[in-house]
Amino acid sequence: MFTQSDTVQFKLPDWITDYTSGVDCLTDVHERMSFVIGAAKRNVEEKTGGPFAAGIFEIASGKLVSLGVNLVTSQGLSILHAEMVAISLAQKKLASYDLGGEGLPRHEIVTSTEPCAMCFGAIPWSGVSRVVTGARDEDARRIGFDEGPKLADWQGALAERQIEVIHDMNREQARKVLDEYLQNGGKIYNARDSA
Amino acid sequence: MFTQSDTVQFKLPDWITDYTSGVDCLTDVHERMSFVIGAAKRNVEEKTGGPFAAGIFEIASGKLVSLGVNLVTSQGLSILHAEMVAISLAQKKLASYDLGGEGLPRHEIVTSTEPCAMCFGAIPWSGVSRVVTGARDEDARRIGFDEGPKLADWQGALAERQIEVIHDMNREQARKVLDEYLQNGGKIYNARDSA
Repeated sequence: MFTQSDTVQFKLPDWITDYTSGVDCLTDVHERMSFVIGAAKRNVEEKTGGPFAAGIFEIASGKLVSLGVNLVTSQGLSILHAEMVAISLAQKKLASYDLGGEGLPRHEIVTSTEPCAMCFGAIPWSGVSRVVTGARDEDARRIGFDEGPKLADWQGALAERQIEVIHDMNREQARKVLDEYLQNGGKIYNARDSA
Repeated sequence: MFTQSDTVQFKLPDWITDYTSGVDCLTDVHERMSFVIGAAKRNVEEKTGGPFAAGIFEIASGKLVSLGVNLVTSQGLSILHAEMVAISLAQKKLASYDLGGEGLPRHEIVTSTEPCAMCFGAIPWSGVSRVVTGARDEDARRIGFDEGPKLADWQGALAERQIEVIHDMNREQARKVLDEYLQNGGKIYNARDSA
């Protein structure tokens, strides 16, 4: 007989509270990225998921709205890439499934690595006006992660939807975290690695 | 000062328990699709989300593993398309972020409408071996939904990853649900409808 849970829940690692303590506005975009990459690094060190983090910020003020990290392995759900976690946390906090909704300031997602095919597709629905990326797709692929079947000109496709992309922000710092993950024997969890 | 919840949760509508009661295996694929489209229709009638549903089944036996519906408006999260909900419920139930993992039977996702850009990108990570679709992208667009910036040959991209696609299954039945949603004044909730 069929049964399924009527709820799905995922939980951030405990260290996030400590990591975000005292943070309010990060006025410089480089500083926002550095903060996000630091969370990716911590996620590796604490072994709470893949080497990726993402934050939602108010573009003008730099106010931190949410911070997410990759939770695929720790929470057992393939959709829990850092971007999806950050978007969901922000939408719950602001009680709006559209971060670009009326009356809201403009928001951006700052992500430590360029989004995979799924997260790229999620960005237009999230309501963010800007995407800031650190490491490139190729940096993630270099350590064995698969970015999925993404439009070659994904930045252009976002631009057509009035979503600006700033890329290569602190790229070296972001790449280092990917390398650390590999060196620490972190799991490369693409579903089809068993194929 | 920054604060955010440390958990995100979403909940299925209560009627799902009733709708799935007594269901176990649906041996014919058309029957699986009909069951999924029925859930989309019910989601419209109950006003619990968009006109979309998706189920995860064991391919060989037709055993129902999970049933998800679109919960974007009811749960306030833009990622909660029916496919994402169904994938997450199945992964939680089987305690595996890879539905194609070792020791598991082959799984398929049966979805009442072709996946949007995000859900398309999520499919390779989910571990399903087959995708069965009802209404087409163009049917969703006809009532105002945006399918996002998706690869023109998305079916080919999945095939390259050994994920089979069967499309136009019960297409007319699936289209009717989209039309009903529009006629009932259902919200077309693409984030940028306010732009």
